[in-house]
Amino acid sequence: MYAQTLILDGNRVANQIKEDLAARVGQLTAKGIQPCLATILVGDDPSSETYVRMKGNACRRLGIHSRRIHLDQSTTTDELIAVIQELNEDSQVHGILLQHPVPHHVDERAAFEAIQPEKDVDGVTMLGFAQNAFGIASFPSCTPAAIIAILDHYQIPIAGKHAVVIGRSPILGKPVSLMLLNRNATVTICHSKTEGLEHLVRLADIVVAAVGKPAFVQGDWIKQGAVILDAGYNPGNIGDVDYEACLPIASAITPVPAGVGPVTIAMLLKHTIDAAEMTNQ
Amino acid sequence: MYAQTLILDGNRVANQIKEDLAARVGQLTAKGIQPCLATILVGDDPSSETYVRMKGNACRRLGIHSRRIHLDQSTTTDELIAVIQELNEDSQVHGILLQHPVPHHVDERAAFEAIQPEKDVDGVTMLGFAQNAFGIASFPSCTPAAIIAILDHYQIPIAGKHAVVIGRSPILGKPVSLMLLNRNATVTICHSKTEGLEHLVRLADIVVAAVGKPAFVQGDWIKQGAVILDAGYNPGNIGDVDYEACLPIASAITPVPAGVGPVTIAMLLKHTIDAAEMTNQ
Repeated sequence: MYAQTLILDGNRVANQIKEDLAARVGQLTAKGIQPCLATILVGDDPSSETYVRMKGNACRRLGIHSRRIHLDQSTTTDELIAVIQELNEDSQVHGILLQHPVPHHVDERAAFEAIQPEKDVDGVTMLGFAQNAFGIASFPSCTPAAIIAILDHYQIPIAGKHAVVIGRSPILGKPVSLMLLNRNATVTICHSKTEGLEHLVRLADIVVAAVGKPAFVQGDWIKQGAVILDAGYNPGNIGDVDYEACLPIASAITPVPAGVGPVTIAMLLKHTIDAAEMTNQ
Repeated sequence: MYAQTLILDGNRVANQIKEDLAARVGQLTAKGIQPCLATILVGDDPSSETYVRMKGNACRRLGIHSRRIHLDQSTTTDELIAVIQELNEDSQVHGILLQHPVPHHVDERAAFEAIQPEKDVDGVTMLGFAQNAFGIASFPSCTPAAIIAILDHYQIPIAGKHAVVIGRSPILGKPVSLMLLNRNATVTICHSKTEGLEHLVRLADIVVAAVGKPAFVQGDWIKQGAVILDAGYNPGNIGDVDYEACLPIASAITPVPAGVGPVTIAMLLKHTIDAAEMTNQ
């Protein structure tokens, strides 16, 4: 049992980020610039609709204009790319978010790559991935950026620590591993083919769960005093970590909900305002 | 003491790759296409001159045309980029290699990024890095590609194994980590800020040493039966691994010289021929 487990409160972190952003939106507005995020939803997946609505609402509450584009399920790759190119050329739009996943017949990678790097506030392009991997300023994917922001908010050291990341997706496991590495963590990347996963997790000072399986990470996998970041979001508001079992062992842990999720949205807002400020330079 | 340590013979692997390539050069030549690699050396660093000469000689022995461009130490970034753009536009040139490092006053990243992705046979552009990271066909950096080729030549399994990579450079540690990950290894990336390095190396089924410190990896860091790939090449033909100490413990090990080095050059030749074949499609 760890003496005092710190609950890493995502709402608190998100609110502080948004307070800072509100001042910056004010400065932009005073210059006649209204920051604008365009969101594109293709098809009628109910969870995706919810996510896009949440992002739009978060924009509006902060004074960021939210332009919602909802395309039919039958949209082709070419049609989607044409919409993205229009948004690239529209100087009123500062950020473009294409909600993942798109219908199976659409080439999602081609659509992501069509987003102009300066407007890639969700960090999905290959150029953005590489810049982030090389430590060059760019918009990293929002969930990895949120994980780092939570660690920084609570002044949890990263350098010299052993981080074990479970998951290797292009927008979460891979970029967060490289960001932790660039912050001088030693990083182990695990996945579905990893053997002896629990033994590796037990080595971790920092555990990032990004595996997409409810309550997957068990309490007896965790080293006393480890820091746990749960990027999972499974049906029924369940994370990738068995929270109740891990809580007494960890020194710090994100809950689900109200952990990584709200900070991910705050990072999207931040990137949109960053982009709006850059066009104004 | 491991019963029988396999010496991973880089010359043998390189020769087999080059035999396959010779046939492909013959087919290209029969169609009137002469594969051509342009190498650019900026300044007068003697080791860089040696590397470029070795690469040029390897090209010529295989029937690949080698166009050597030697620029003055005082060359500016803009001048270098202009040379690269000429080579991009020259349909006789299939691959472009800018020898690292360039003089300090030159922006090496900007110069690398000027190389057209289709001609980036040395795998230095950010787009190539990201494609490789995402498992999309591309030219990976040659040393990481050589490490994978050696493992494959000797049919050493990668999937499910724990690989520990020491080093995190953009052209070696990071890309080889991602390539091993994409081949379903569990990967730990270590570096100068790693604490307890020897304990982590002792967990490894596969050790990749890419740290640039002579005889750095010690015999008592190695698990019985581990596979060791030494990508180091320090003055005096010394690798990053204490070879004599590790030899009796490893199940397989690359020597230095005649380990990773010759296969790295073979991969450069292979990528050049791949590029020549693609322009002919």
